[in-house]
Amino acid sequence: MVIRPYGYAIWCVCASHRHMQACALTRTQTCREHIQAWLDKKFKETGHSNAYFPQLIPYSFIAKEAKHVEGFAPELALVTRGGGKELEEPLVVRPTSETVVNHMFAQWIHSYRDLPVLVNQWANVHRWEMRTRPFIRTLEFLWQEGHTAHATAAEAEEEAKAMIALYARFAYEVAALPVVVGRKSRAESFAGADLTYTIEAMMGDGKALQAGTSHNLGQNFAKAFEIQFTDENGALSHVWQTSWGVSTRMVGGVIMAHGDDTGLRLPPALAPVQLIVVPIWKKEEEKAGVMAAAQGVVAAATAAGVRAQLDAREGRTPGWKYNHWEMKGVPVRCEVGPRDVASGTCVLARRDVPGKDGKTMGIPLEPAQLTEALKRMLDDVQAGLLAQATAFRDAHIVDVASYDELKTVVDSGRWARGPWAGSDADEARVKAETGATFRCYPFEQPPGEKTCFMTGAKATEVALFAKAY
Amino acid sequence: MVIRPYGYAIWCVCASHRHMQACALTRTQTCREHIQAWLDKKFKETGHSNAYFPQLIPYSFIAKEAKHVEGFAPELALVTRGGGKELEEPLVVRPTSETVVNHMFAQWIHSYRDLPVLVNQWANVHRWEMRTRPFIRTLEFLWQEGHTAHATAAEAEEEAKAMIALYARFAYEVAALPVVVGRKSRAESFAGADLTYTIEAMMGDGKALQAGTSHNLGQNFAKAFEIQFTDENGALSHVWQTSWGVSTRMVGGVIMAHGDDTGLRLPPALAPVQLIVVPIWKKEEEKAGVMAAAQGVVAAATAAGVRAQLDAREGRTPGWKYNHWEMKGVPVRCEVGPRDVASGTCVLARRDVPGKDGKTMGIPLEPAQLTEALKRMLDDVQAGLLAQATAFRDAHIVDVASYDELKTVVDSGRWARGPWAGSDADEARVKAETGATFRCYPFEQPPGEKTCFMTGAKATEVALFAKAY
Repeated sequence: MVIRPYGYAIWCVCASHRHMQACALTRTQTCREHIQAWLDKKFKETGHSNAYFPQLIPYSFIAKEAKHVEGFAPELALVTRGGGKELEEPLVVRPTSETVVNHMFAQWIHSYRDLPVLVNQWANVHRWEMRTRPFIRTLEFLWQEGHTAHATAAEAEEEAKAMIALYARFAYEVAALPVVVGRKSRAESFAGADLTYTIEAMMGDGKALQAGTSHNLGQNFAKAFEIQFTDENGALSHVWQTSWGVSTRMVGGVIMAHGDDTGLRLPPALAPVQLIVVPIWKKEEEKAGVMAAAQGVVAAATAAGVRAQLDAREGRTPGWKYNHWEMKGVPVRCEVGPRDVASGTCVLARRDVPGKDGKTMGIPLEPAQLTEALKRMLDDVQAGLLAQATAFRDAHIVDVASYDELKTVVDSGRWARGPWAGSDADEARVKAETGATFRCYPFEQPPGEKTCFMTGAKATEVALFAKAY
Repeated sequence: MVIRPYGYAIWCVCASHRHMQACALTRTQTCREHIQAWLDKKFKETGHSNAYFPQLIPYSFIAKEAKHVEGFAPELALVTRGGGKELEEPLVVRPTSETVVNHMFAQWIHSYRDLPVLVNQWANVHRWEMRTRPFIRTLEFLWQEGHTAHATAAEAEEEAKAMIALYARFAYEVAALPVVVGRKSRAESFAGADLTYTIEAMMGDGKALQAGTSHNLGQNFAKAFEIQFTDENGALSHVWQTSWGVSTRMVGGVIMAHGDDTGLRLPPALAPVQLIVVPIWKKEEEKAGVMAAAQGVVAAATAAGVRAQLDAREGRTPGWKYNHWEMKGVPVRCEVGPRDVASGTCVLARRDVPGKDGKTMGIPLEPAQLTEALKRMLDDVQAGLLAQATAFRDAHIVDVASYDELKTVVDSGRWARGPWAGSDADEARVKAETGATFRCYPFEQPPGEKTCFMTGAKATEVALFAKAY
């Protein structure tokens, strides 16, 4: 998969769009709201530092943690030749970096004074997938992977929970994704983790997407890589660890959760272009006035911190431009025609509300009033997308009290939620028979006594099952 | 090579150092001056957009451009197994991305309206090196690679020259490296380029380091990958292209150009920590006052945009801390003791001037006066490092009029500059016999007629020869 500039701009710190696809567009403002920028800032604020570890990992490293190698072996890409020679030991193209990170941690960590170690890496990783899908499941993807080591089990658990909470906050506040936060089953946990926390997002077709995970690794890797420290009393202990990651899959989640038949619908916080301005004129004598007004809108919006662009292309009709930018998911469109110029106003149209209902006429061109209305509309679109996605989610999660009910719900493209005390084998049976997988034990649990819908045994928690990407 | 947070912070956008090496340090400010941030901003300002291309490239792509494959084949890492199976065609772990980028350009570019295409990629690359050296020559390194396509030869040449000029500006203004800018010989040009421009930096031992290159690729890749466009008259032409890159090698260049026997000396513009504050006290009753004053210095400096940290560690002497932070290359140190507190002052010591000469006593603790003095000193250190490196460079470039003179100059660890009209074979002979390689034809050329020091033939340019990393 090639990530072109418009897509990369959603993932990465900032982007300019001059010359992109030969559009005569004005420059885009840099922005601290895109996925990488938002997360990186929060990681720093919570004490993490960025570092970089080698991508090619000796196979013997991967093999050190038994469950880890079992989980990842089928997905590995192997370098067997380098510099014209056959290698004595194949090198793994990292699918994740726990092994090489912990190989280094063992050399860095000696005393309780060295703890906690809190590092993050922005990197590319490879997993050999049989069926790929753009952004969602790709052989190579970009991500961040946090790796931490702590003196106590409680600290590691706190870290793992804090990071999944951060991901959930990003999903709600920035991506407008009302994810369900919870804990994975043993079978669905990360290979080598004691516990895996997840944020599960609902796509527009009702399928689930695991959009970020945080793992409490316990002492599994610490023991495999002999990461020990001397505590305050001089006793030697293994460290307690976490790892956590969010990837370019998040871009796919945003596209597939919010998109409609017309194209993308990007949350303003993530949109590379927040406002597209389309000038409209028919007669040549109208052009100068309309263009001046349109440029004024871009200038006012830009000065107010909005990422605004002018689509001044000739040879394209306004209607063609509307379709083009709707497909691109731009949250707000501004239309300026001769009559608007005459009355000192313009039209704003929001992407999340289709047709006439999404249009507001008579917005003053006066900069202060214009930008106030524009910013309010961007906020409304951000909130509107979250509200729509939340309503959709709530309408598509159904409580079930029996396996038959689960089957019906799953078949109708919804998520089934029910009390669960099943075994690994029960879980495997649900998957084999219905195509639905265990998504999580949600953190938010209904009160009261429960009976497992599968086994009839007493259950302490409800679980979510759904078809997933 | 693992890049730990302090090193990564020189390369990448920003870094926090809380918990780093268990130091009780205050937070570092984020910063837009580090290598990646500075360059990325300039790329955007000059119309480039970031994108991301696959890292694993089919071997057949690499083989399409004859000189390219000849140059890179010996350095390739090859993935031959994926997902548990032997691959039909090996995949190359990218050593550079011209081939995959141009495979895509052929699909994106059809008309003159699609041009220019100006993309940049921040990525890791691998080159299988026999002899490695941290930051300078590593099997894997991080870099940016720009790739552009233009309608005319003149535009491509302008772009290639503009980018090497940008790298030179970065070297002088940010890295304090007085690089020589010039053109490579045919033998030293990039595999597949018509022309390669370079910035050559002089290290502290007199060796040269190629610190960034920009290539005019002509139509070589365009022909290999069939990238054609229809011009304004309907005629079909191949595009004209450039590529250009700077890597984590730049971090090594900064270390090896400015470092002294005490450790690093980082230019303030690149230093993750610009000011380290060391509190000094002997008696317990002195501690509170000293600590308050030291914290005040950090607060004032931070508020003024300086990346300042307090080293409040107990159990380490001030002298130990001075050595530690000198080794780390921190440009300015602030010392605060009881007598300073009593007089409302502190001491500032600059890293680029050793011993007493680098110390200024009696700097007022009053925030406005303190930060004014501090900022001036940071500017002085930035200018001082550039001035020292420039004087060193000028003392180590010697004009030669004969091959014997070149040998003497090169043997003494200096760079030889002389009129050159030699053949590829002559150039190879210099390398074999002296260990010096052709560095560049400098853009700045002395006037007048010249006679090649090697062949006695008429020469139009002088060239630089030096031992290099």
